[in-house]
Amino acid sequence: MYKVKVYVTLRENVLDPQGSAVKGALHSLSYQEVQDVRIGKFMELMIEKNDRDIEEIVRDMCEKLLANTVIEDYRYEIEEVVAQ
Amino acid sequence: MYKVKVYVTLRENVLDPQGSAVKGALHSLSYQEVQDVRIGKFMELMIEKNDRDIEEIVRDMCEKLLANTVIEDYRYEIEEVVAQ
Repeated sequence: MYKVKVYVTLRENVLDPQGSAVKGALHSLSYQEVQDVRIGKFMELMIEKNDRDIEEIVRDMCEKLLANTVIEDYRYEIEEVVAQ
Repeated sequence: MYKVKVYVTLRENVLDPQGSAVKGALHSLSYQEVQDVRIGKFMELMIEKNDRDIEEIVRDMCEKLLANTVIEDYRYEIEEVVAQ
């Protein structure tokens, strides 16, 4: 069994209205020191071992479904766990 | 300047309908090996240095705005960066 963590973030030059809204909210809570906020997604997947390469599977899933690669970047961490 | 990464995840025993939907979508793309999907948020904040303790600021912001601590857990990483 693998535990896979996938981080999907908006590309640098893509506007992030949700981040701007959170930044505005933090400013109105008087956290003026906040300069910038970017919001992304964090996914944790449990994947069963099989004969395909786990990295290939994860990259495939990201490209096809988990990230929109036109406007988003992704990175992932794979960790092997012992099923309980 | 600090770069702060905040990860907000649903608590273990809270249902995650978005995760279930993504799991269903992955299955229908024939990734049957996916056992479980949990979806959270990932935030990257740039925060200016001031005389308050950065950890205290981040914890405060998480408790007040960034996470709903009734159903969500959060964790964060703080990294000091040199402003360009």
